[in-house]
Amino acid sequence: MTLSDISTPAALVDTARMQANIRRMQDRMNALGVKFRPHVKTSKCVEVVRAQVEAGASGITVSTLKEAEQFFAAGITDILYAVGMAPNKLAQALALRRKGCDLKIVTDSVEGAQAIAAFGREHGEVFETWIEIDTDGHRSGVKPEDALLLDVGRALVDGGAKLGGVMTHAGESYNCSTPHALRKMAEQERAGCVRAAQRLRDAGLPCAVVSVGSTPTALSAEQLEGVTEVRAGVYVFFDLVMANVGVCTQDDIALSVLTTVIGHQREKGWAIVDAGWMAMSRDRGTQSQAHDYGYGQVCDAQGRPMQGFVLSSANQEHGVVTASAGGNVALDIAAVLPVGTQLRILPNHACATGAQFPEYHAVGTDGATTAWPRFYGW
Amino acid sequence: MTLSDISTPAALVDTARMQANIRRMQDRMNALGVKFRPHVKTSKCVEVVRAQVEAGASGITVSTLKEAEQFFAAGITDILYAVGMAPNKLAQALALRRKGCDLKIVTDSVEGAQAIAAFGREHGEVFETWIEIDTDGHRSGVKPEDALLLDVGRALVDGGAKLGGVMTHAGESYNCSTPHALRKMAEQERAGCVRAAQRLRDAGLPCAVVSVGSTPTALSAEQLEGVTEVRAGVYVFFDLVMANVGVCTQDDIALSVLTTVIGHQREKGWAIVDAGWMAMSRDRGTQSQAHDYGYGQVCDAQGRPMQGFVLSSANQEHGVVTASAGGNVALDIAAVLPVGTQLRILPNHACATGAQFPEYHAVGTDGATTAWPRFYGW
Repeated sequence: MTLSDISTPAALVDTARMQANIRRMQDRMNALGVKFRPHVKTSKCVEVVRAQVEAGASGITVSTLKEAEQFFAAGITDILYAVGMAPNKLAQALALRRKGCDLKIVTDSVEGAQAIAAFGREHGEVFETWIEIDTDGHRSGVKPEDALLLDVGRALVDGGAKLGGVMTHAGESYNCSTPHALRKMAEQERAGCVRAAQRLRDAGLPCAVVSVGSTPTALSAEQLEGVTEVRAGVYVFFDLVMANVGVCTQDDIALSVLTTVIGHQREKGWAIVDAGWMAMSRDRGTQSQAHDYGYGQVCDAQGRPMQGFVLSSANQEHGVVTASAGGNVALDIAAVLPVGTQLRILPNHACATGAQFPEYHAVGTDGATTAWPRFYGW
Repeated sequence: MTLSDISTPAALVDTARMQANIRRMQDRMNALGVKFRPHVKTSKCVEVVRAQVEAGASGITVSTLKEAEQFFAAGITDILYAVGMAPNKLAQALALRRKGCDLKIVTDSVEGAQAIAAFGREHGEVFETWIEIDTDGHRSGVKPEDALLLDVGRALVDGGAKLGGVMTHAGESYNCSTPHALRKMAEQERAGCVRAAQRLRDAGLPCAVVSVGSTPTALSAEQLEGVTEVRAGVYVFFDLVMANVGVCTQDDIALSVLTTVIGHQREKGWAIVDAGWMAMSRDRGTQSQAHDYGYGQVCDAQGRPMQGFVLSSANQEHGVVTASAGGNVALDIAAVLPVGTQLRILPNHACATGAQFPEYHAVGTDGATTAWPRFYGW
């Protein structure tokens, strides 16, 4: 298959860019002396994750137990489920462990820890559990200095679970846009998580693992003393949000949506394409950043950015391409982009856009394409 | 299965509400003396569409050729593909027609019409094509008074295609919020499409079908003189955007996302749930409306709205429930919504939220649930 054989809209992966992104991150982690545990929620695709493992990854991070099941079936055993454990998902986690999956789970509350420990005692299973640490006020987790930290640790240990370590995710790093702010956030993430580990150890509790990470902080950290492993997901494809953050350029973005021009509103300067929000997702992550790309940066069929052209609005299966946010009425859009023209759209957020498609079309340097299935759901 | 057996997040369909929504729309269309062609892009689910057909629908509308293929395989033959035909999709359309599908396609340009006619001549097929009319400046289509209308019609007829009619969609109706504005938009949609049909007929061109519709205009039109059929999609489930538009209440919304509380940030008044944007979609359609629901209205497990509680922010697999947009620090959220609590979230946009799930769980009045598969992709 080549691009012109593919029905649009379709998700394309530039494999050379993907491999370069994987290499860049793994080399960095090797230089910093930490293990790297990629977050596979971005791709949900065995072929992509295989490339990450071949480059040197140690285990994976998942956002759903379905991801754990799928990648365990593909041969990966060292898996961190990085979303706070709901008590009603423990049976599913138990089933995975019973099959031989070295599944680690996460909690940030005493009641969560007690539920995990109690379920383990009831079923004769010792669940390895990591405590989630809040190092940036972004989402879940126990603050490093909070008395709650030791309470959660003791609830696990006293209840018979295994306290395996601490983990944090500095999601606030997505709101940074200068190298200085990124380095500062990376250090804050590192220091907070290491401090939490130290407090647990000082209280006589075990804490073997210190796991940190997000794509921006992983690519900005100057040193990772006390950290044992780093996690990151979106770096494998990158996207326009990450370009605005400043950790990649448009030329690093490996995921795009192939689309076809299906009509025009000439007097408005609109080309209508068959990639709407069902293809791009509704993610408008660049809206609050320095450069707002609408629903995506328009490129030609070879992937060369057409500067100034964005997917400025989207309905379910219709997208509107304009030469600026409001359209350029001086431009004869129908002459520039006639019906049938193929374009590629770089996405705001690779995790959200990829999730809209049952498969990626991996595009090699020779232009040949291979279908890489991906899964969805829970 | 009952609700407590279902792994979260999960998409629930309240079947009693769905049936009432279907009945309301079909009764209205019957009273107005027009056929009704539901848009199945909302559900992509055979069980839902079967209920619409049993209630009296005449054919269906699709937004992708995959929907056409899936519903043709389920026994439906009268299908309108309501997105402007891309030349590179004609082979797929031809394959459907050759199998016996009475597929109608759409164009709004001379080049599109010529491509359809030429492909038909080349393959000995007469494609029934409708001309898309722009009655509100919202998206695609030829304006009713534009000279282009007759050019497109002649390109079809002279080229050997079948000009079957005209169709329009007043997407701008989503921006209305008063009965007066809705009635006015419905009349604008009707009058514009009927006028386009009249111009074609006056020029000696055939125009059997006059097809209009959107959920807001279908539920607001006072008379549909000259219209032969109406199309609408989201009415089958409704959502918070439609509640803000004023064509349903929260109690009519048949789709919700079942979720579980997995943690808290007590001092911020946050409950963390396992429905993030992957479950809800990134659709923030109520953001620009009178009432902004964040990522959704929170209800208890039985579906009763908890007034003031919304899903105020979302990461991929984490949602943040607060008692107001910014959180209510006076409330002990962990006491009100302890870990393990199940909630239902009403979505901003049913088409976008449903698309995130491989299946719906249809919930009957007795609380028993049945899995209804849905498909995705192109």
